[in-house]
Amino acid sequence: MRAVQDSMDVLSGKWKIAILSSICYYNKRRFSDILHDVEGISNKMLSKELKELEINKLVNRSVMDTQPITVQYELTEHGRTLQTIINHLTAWGIEHRKKIIGE
Amino acid sequence: MRAVQDSMDVLSGKWKIAILSSICYYNKRRFSDILHDVEGISNKMLSKELKELEINKLVNRSVMDTQPITVQYELTEHGRTLQTIINHLTAWGIEHRKKIIGE
Repeated sequence: MRAVQDSMDVLSGKWKIAILSSICYYNKRRFSDILHDVEGISNKMLSKELKELEINKLVNRSVMDTQPITVQYELTEHGRTLQTIINHLTAWGIEHRKKIIGE
Repeated sequence: MRAVQDSMDVLSGKWKIAILSSICYYNKRRFSDILHDVEGISNKMLSKELKELEINKLVNRSVMDTQPITVQYELTEHGRTLQTIINHLTAWGIEHRKKIIGE
């Protein structure tokens, strides 16, 4: 039981998996693009969630020397081990929506 | 992105996946046993989470005609489709703990 709780401690909350799947889908993703991808998330919340994902060694942050400066994120090797779970959660989400809302 | 968010809306929070994995592990599980399995959860929280899982058609609740009465839970067919995700999250949780805490 504890192992699955460990995972959920890291991945829990409304946003983390959606953020990871946005970065995962595009391989590298700018902050502003993630903000656009993840429906309903605020700038402040995205910063906080990305910080936590960095602390948990799931994403790397790089500052691009552009005008204006852009910040880019990519999954770490450890982060990429989540790919299977993200794919399963995506497929399950589609099935669940059909089951519950009949869409 | 929305599909993965749909999943996390249902599974999110600290407790749901741990509750599902307890029921899943034992096939059928009494309320009091789940309370014991899931480290740190309160009676009130467990009732609330189980109610939400029932609404989302993931678990079935049955009242056993025992003295005193016992309430038992099992996964629905739809709930059992989460088995793969729960297994992956369990395995990932073990890897993550090694990576982060070096246990």
